[in-house]
Amino acid sequence: MSKKRIYLNAFDMNCVGHQSPGLWKHPNDQSDTYNTIEYWVNLARLLEKGKFDGLFIADVIGLYDVYESSREATIREATQVPVNDPAMLISVMAYATEHIGFGLTASSTFEHPYTFARRISTLDHLTKGRIAWNIVTSYLESGTKNIEIGDKFEHTKRYDIADEYLEVCYKLWESSWEDGAVVRDAKRGVFTDPEKVHEIGHQGEFFSVPGIHLCEPSPQRTPVLYQAGASPRGTQFAAKHAELTFISTPSKEATATYVKTLRAESAKQGRDPESLKVLALATVIVGETEEEAQAKYEDLAQYVSYEGAMTLLSGWSGIDFSKFDPDQELQYIETNAIKSMLEGLTKASPNKKWTPRELANFAGIGGLGPIFIGTPETIADLFEEWIDETDIDGFNLAYAITPGTFEDIVELVIPELQKRGIFKKAYGEGTLREKLFGESPYLRNDHIGHRYKRIAEPVK
Amino acid sequence: MSKKRIYLNAFDMNCVGHQSPGLWKHPNDQSDTYNTIEYWVNLARLLEKGKFDGLFIADVIGLYDVYESSREATIREATQVPVNDPAMLISVMAYATEHIGFGLTASSTFEHPYTFARRISTLDHLTKGRIAWNIVTSYLESGTKNIEIGDKFEHTKRYDIADEYLEVCYKLWESSWEDGAVVRDAKRGVFTDPEKVHEIGHQGEFFSVPGIHLCEPSPQRTPVLYQAGASPRGTQFAAKHAELTFISTPSKEATATYVKTLRAESAKQGRDPESLKVLALATVIVGETEEEAQAKYEDLAQYVSYEGAMTLLSGWSGIDFSKFDPDQELQYIETNAIKSMLEGLTKASPNKKWTPRELANFAGIGGLGPIFIGTPETIADLFEEWIDETDIDGFNLAYAITPGTFEDIVELVIPELQKRGIFKKAYGEGTLREKLFGESPYLRNDHIGHRYKRIAEPVK
Repeated sequence: MSKKRIYLNAFDMNCVGHQSPGLWKHPNDQSDTYNTIEYWVNLARLLEKGKFDGLFIADVIGLYDVYESSREATIREATQVPVNDPAMLISVMAYATEHIGFGLTASSTFEHPYTFARRISTLDHLTKGRIAWNIVTSYLESGTKNIEIGDKFEHTKRYDIADEYLEVCYKLWESSWEDGAVVRDAKRGVFTDPEKVHEIGHQGEFFSVPGIHLCEPSPQRTPVLYQAGASPRGTQFAAKHAELTFISTPSKEATATYVKTLRAESAKQGRDPESLKVLALATVIVGETEEEAQAKYEDLAQYVSYEGAMTLLSGWSGIDFSKFDPDQELQYIETNAIKSMLEGLTKASPNKKWTPRELANFAGIGGLGPIFIGTPETIADLFEEWIDETDIDGFNLAYAITPGTFEDIVELVIPELQKRGIFKKAYGEGTLREKLFGESPYLRNDHIGHRYKRIAEPVK
Repeated sequence: MSKKRIYLNAFDMNCVGHQSPGLWKHPNDQSDTYNTIEYWVNLARLLEKGKFDGLFIADVIGLYDVYESSREATIREATQVPVNDPAMLISVMAYATEHIGFGLTASSTFEHPYTFARRISTLDHLTKGRIAWNIVTSYLESGTKNIEIGDKFEHTKRYDIADEYLEVCYKLWESSWEDGAVVRDAKRGVFTDPEKVHEIGHQGEFFSVPGIHLCEPSPQRTPVLYQAGASPRGTQFAAKHAELTFISTPSKEATATYVKTLRAESAKQGRDPESLKVLALATVIVGETEEEAQAKYEDLAQYVSYEGAMTLLSGWSGIDFSKFDPDQELQYIETNAIKSMLEGLTKASPNKKWTPRELANFAGIGGLGPIFIGTPETIADLFEEWIDETDIDGFNLAYAITPGTFEDIVELVIPELQKRGIFKKAYGEGTLREKLFGESPYLRNDHIGHRYKRIAEPVK
């Protein structure tokens, strides 16, 4: 049995029924109150009561318009649209809690790094060092077409641009203001020592940022960095920049392969491969008995919307599922996106015939991660089994309904994990980075961002 | 005596010593805690206790580098740098209060209208309709040079770009989602009626935004619009778009001229000129007696930093004051910016010799508005005098020290205004727009933004 410390994030988005298309119709689901402060304050407090490491807030700018080559079903089903800005939620949740971290998704496509870096520094100040940034590069043409970015952000260059975006951010966060630059010396009349504030002088292929960072150093300087790219280029990017990554597949085999590749890649970058934590997407349906859990699952399953799930899966894969018979097996679809999806599903359930309908029923409750159903003991066993067999470090827990799914986890699963000694009973001290990794509030010495601490020295 | 209802905003910025260079050294000033949630929650609650209409948060992206052609003194004196992102403050202050409005400054230069419109809609949802947007166009090359915008945003075109920026925003806010588009009909499985959500199809000179708005309609749709441009083109812009404007001069004559011009311009746009409210910048130093107030002023004045004030005034005017003798009269400086500043000062204090030092002493406490010193009765008299003689609607109150200046106002001035029946004793119902204007939560019928409500009809 594993005695690894388990990391747990809750997964949500500033929208209705995040990865549970149709479940907004469930009488206990409150996801349609996403646009109220009350929903988020209540959720943050609940998760902190359960000692969750963080709340990870996804974001998508754009909408899924692949299914039926239309946005009609997406809008009707509220498939991640309407969708509000997640950054606006952080300060109020920080005020209502003391320890939990906030993983904010933001794209390197939609905002300039100069102003984005200020936004994140502001949040790191306000949360006293509890902010994380989930770096995404934005793949939806339905979003990017609205900001006239043209071929500056063409698809193949997304990660190159993101690499330089990070470089600009590291320079602003790590090197512009030295430690001790802010002296607040009322006697001498010096608030900041100008000798210790530097222009970053960045001139790159995509960005030109000559000036200083506008913010004084925040508790973590660079936020904790999340990333979830699973393609070869995405994995390489994660191995270079991420401190926490996410994988989303029902298959333990695919998960194990990803973790192995990621750690090997990060070692190539000169990083301690164990310092990079990997969380797997999962959805937990828990009851006091196996029967109660199963009944809960069946109650939830009846609310899944076939069309809602199809808009999501079509958007993710780029394949218009409306062209396929809902009840015919998917084997024959010759595209890489579907093949890789099917491979994971087939490995997870080898005897099942995977049709669009079955796929919708599966992915319609929390997305493409495994669904764990059972008593707290069963769930804890499954957690340990996955960790042992795949080398992941924990889970990114989606909801079927919110906050109901999280309430059940906090009430039933967390105590079982704590009893087994694999989940913390209290938060650690300090910033989010210290709580997660137990070391410094800043990037580790072997992280690329650390090299920018003193840009007077050559940076490779 | 005027019986006009007085509007009061408090003026602050997410930085140290907003318009009071050097006063961060005062033992009672807490502006250096700008980077904490506690400062803002405390301030918002205090202002709501005093029934302030709003908290107006300025913002500057860039830094003042005109004085001595350097950023050194600016950084040393903390002249509006470090400066954090104001948008991150709103949700927590909304949670801590019930009525007060939040005027957020954001520039049409630094963020694309497509994502900006989402940010504002999110805030309008979270605050239940208490958000206002102070539209600025950004004039500091020290900021814009960092986002490679080049001549797309050249100075002379700033307002043309801002006009189109507003047009995109109006289309997203007013026309993309019809009233009643969100039906939340669990029985039919319809969250949003796709027939009532429209692509805006914007193709303009500066922006191309074909898609839908990503947010469902918020309580006010378009936020309450603030603007503060005082140049002829700025005034024209304000007359077209603003619902609340700001003027900053010590002279009643200059204020009266501005108000007259603005109302005449807004009438030309087909608007009711009285529907546009004008607030004048002022700083209030109040005591139980005249002597106490004067002593307070003298105590504060000794902390003003000459160099700090000069970095601010040089940045505002574009004139490097380090080239002038601090004690020589300013008459001989032949630039429009200084002339117009001097004209206001001389009209306000005809017998004073305005040297750089006197200017620093004056503007160093709250900026270029008048400083009102005295008992609550004196302050209330001055308020009424200004309103009667200039046709303004109220004041935008700067601080000398924070929250001390605002505490004094809440404790001493507000009760006097209430006693005279010229300031509300309780907030009105509804959104910020309803509280301010007592009509609908939406833009008035005679406002240009209203025309975009149904873009199927031709919009001029």
